[in-house]
Amino acid sequence: MSTKSDVLSIAKAAKRASYILAQLSSKEKNAAIRKMSAAIERGKGSILRANREDIRKAKLKKLKSSLIDRLRLNSKRIDSMAASLNAVANLKDHVGRMEEAKRRPNGLLIGKMIVPIGVIGIIYESRPNVTSDCAGLCVKSGNAVILKGGSEALNSNKAILKCIKRGISGTRVPEDSVMLVTTASRNAVRRLLKLTEHIDLIIPRGGEGLIREVASNSLIPVIKHYKGVCHVYVDKEADLNMAHKIALNAKVQRPGVCNAMETLLVHEDIAPRFLPIAAAALKDKGVEIRGCEKTRAILKWARRAGESDWTEEYLDLILSVKIVTSVEEAISHINKYGSRHSDAIVTSDDGTAAKFLKRVDAACVYLNASTRFTDGFEFGLGAEIGISTDKLHARGPMGIRELTTYKYVVLGKGQVRR
Amino acid sequence: MSTKSDVLSIAKAAKRASYILAQLSSKEKNAAIRKMSAAIERGKGSILRANREDIRKAKLKKLKSSLIDRLRLNSKRIDSMAASLNAVANLKDHVGRMEEAKRRPNGLLIGKMIVPIGVIGIIYESRPNVTSDCAGLCVKSGNAVILKGGSEALNSNKAILKCIKRGISGTRVPEDSVMLVTTASRNAVRRLLKLTEHIDLIIPRGGEGLIREVASNSLIPVIKHYKGVCHVYVDKEADLNMAHKIALNAKVQRPGVCNAMETLLVHEDIAPRFLPIAAAALKDKGVEIRGCEKTRAILKWARRAGESDWTEEYLDLILSVKIVTSVEEAISHINKYGSRHSDAIVTSDDGTAAKFLKRVDAACVYLNASTRFTDGFEFGLGAEIGISTDKLHARGPMGIRELTTYKYVVLGKGQVRR
Repeated sequence: MSTKSDVLSIAKAAKRASYILAQLSSKEKNAAIRKMSAAIERGKGSILRANREDIRKAKLKKLKSSLIDRLRLNSKRIDSMAASLNAVANLKDHVGRMEEAKRRPNGLLIGKMIVPIGVIGIIYESRPNVTSDCAGLCVKSGNAVILKGGSEALNSNKAILKCIKRGISGTRVPEDSVMLVTTASRNAVRRLLKLTEHIDLIIPRGGEGLIREVASNSLIPVIKHYKGVCHVYVDKEADLNMAHKIALNAKVQRPGVCNAMETLLVHEDIAPRFLPIAAAALKDKGVEIRGCEKTRAILKWARRAGESDWTEEYLDLILSVKIVTSVEEAISHINKYGSRHSDAIVTSDDGTAAKFLKRVDAACVYLNASTRFTDGFEFGLGAEIGISTDKLHARGPMGIRELTTYKYVVLGKGQVRR
Repeated sequence: MSTKSDVLSIAKAAKRASYILAQLSSKEKNAAIRKMSAAIERGKGSILRANREDIRKAKLKKLKSSLIDRLRLNSKRIDSMAASLNAVANLKDHVGRMEEAKRRPNGLLIGKMIVPIGVIGIIYESRPNVTSDCAGLCVKSGNAVILKGGSEALNSNKAILKCIKRGISGTRVPEDSVMLVTTASRNAVRRLLKLTEHIDLIIPRGGEGLIREVASNSLIPVIKHYKGVCHVYVDKEADLNMAHKIALNAKVQRPGVCNAMETLLVHEDIAPRFLPIAAAALKDKGVEIRGCEKTRAILKWARRAGESDWTEEYLDLILSVKIVTSVEEAISHINKYGSRHSDAIVTSDDGTAAKFLKRVDAACVYLNASTRFTDGFEFGLGAEIGISTDKLHARGPMGIRELTTYKYVVLGKGQVRR
């Protein structure tokens, strides 16, 4: 654990470490990550003890049980943290690769070299596994990382960091590559967000409140994920059996996550055939339906959807349903109320599909598949540090490739400008 | 000219236009850009009249002559604005292209579709040609643009925008794709910078003061270019004749621009041979030399460089010179004092070159070439909207490719998540 406690010292140390880390080979970084993993396995007892202390305090403070759930570690969860680190060590490293090399008429050879971003600040809540996951992904991509977890998880995070530092020590990765801000003060975060000289990117992970707080106070670039108000649009040319399966999967397979469907849009031509069966199946799984007027004409038992239902991220077994007259209306609805996360169309008409895929303004647009696939593993990125609903730098699932940037490398033979 | 005067109405109109513009074909966008060019040629008289009015007011206000110079238009400059638009129309369009398509084991086909960013706000000073250049580049890349020029150029910018609107009108490009904020109030800019729902990216162009003001007030992502403190490092293994030519070119070919050299670093082993000749040639071109102690031991006539000289962007015939003991010291100096813009090494040693190119943290790193090549045209991007010294999304010269982002397109056959 670092004795440097103020955020400026922490950031400066991380910046220094980042220059060394950026130059290491994949082999050197992977060796350190595997040692981090082993140290977490060996430190399981100490991590569990620290976690019990956090849980005890959380209960005293009467925190919500869902929060305590996210906070809680057990032997299996720690095994899985260690396993994730080993999986990250096995990922392909992009750093140092040259891309898009081209020869200019004057003989200059210009290419882009993939390089780490530098120092990344992660501000997060509850889940202590974020500590080791982010440490692994950042080290792998050659970035130093400053971690600021929630105060409710402080003991757990400290114990995990101690293991990580123990793992790193003696490897080529500088110890200051992974730093933890341990002060509980909100001002510390505010100060951190102003350190543009030392920190290159901030990624907040948590509820919308935390993310808005970070985004509105940061002078450092932020890549964020506000929420996932995901849509499935069932077109009049849809295979209704397929649409049924996709809608069910997108809503109920895991309703509490950001890529679950929150609003079902149905073309009016097939709504009378599709909705009674699909809605019954959803209801059967415990889903509460909130429909527009047209929906309620078909599903008499459905609740009425208010304006606020169209922007709500339920993260629960609740679904808003709207009947639309065309794919254009579906697209407009999504672009107006959606969160630019993941939206799907079910159709067998290529022209309608192309229209939807081109016009819907979201990080991920789907044809004939469940929105639940928006995920770093499912996309083949190996792991993810988050899902961006922003448009700059990275969109959708962010893997280690998205934790890098490039620099132009220009090779000459004495060329000067005329 | 739009009658919508408040920034919120302007931003909302631009957002609506951006959805239409994003769907147009290259042909449709190019036709509109060529008509913009023709309308500027036809409107030359009115633009020149408006510009004379701006110049008259600027003189009354006793603005600096360099500023008045940048503000001044003449027939040739307007021809060149029109020619630039035609050149932009001829550039290759990336929008709609699919990249990195891959088939996942579950059969999903996942690719990235290149899409416009949306609405881009450009906040700039003096040069009225920025108005037409940015309008062309944004329309070409499918983005609506909100232009906020300096109050000193208001009449010129209004006249140029009138031509642009006249050119667009009757084409498939919506008129609201190019909007001008005409109020002189600073509050208008402040309000603009908070409109995260309607504007996706801000690019400030101007002096460091303007850029810091924009960066510290914006809730919208900003891509910026602070300054160019560019270095040339002459290694002990340099071809001294080549080093001489590169140093001279980097400093004097056009000293007032961001990619000109501001600091020359020289290895101590060759300094006694290299510096007297190189410095004499620089002095001959009117360059004032400010040297470190070791430099002044060789060049008795040089002024003493103070600590502030290492971070100063002179933009003038002034050069700071420092003698270093190794490539490592050169790299440390650049990473400490540089501005992450463009830095060059002159050497014939491959190992030393590789070290420099890998470790220097800058948008563009050069081997054996002048830093003056950092430029959209020289890099083969066709045109540039600016040069980014940031690390996220785009680094170095930004062309129309950098004005786009991507969305994931996922094509399925009914896949659901297990």
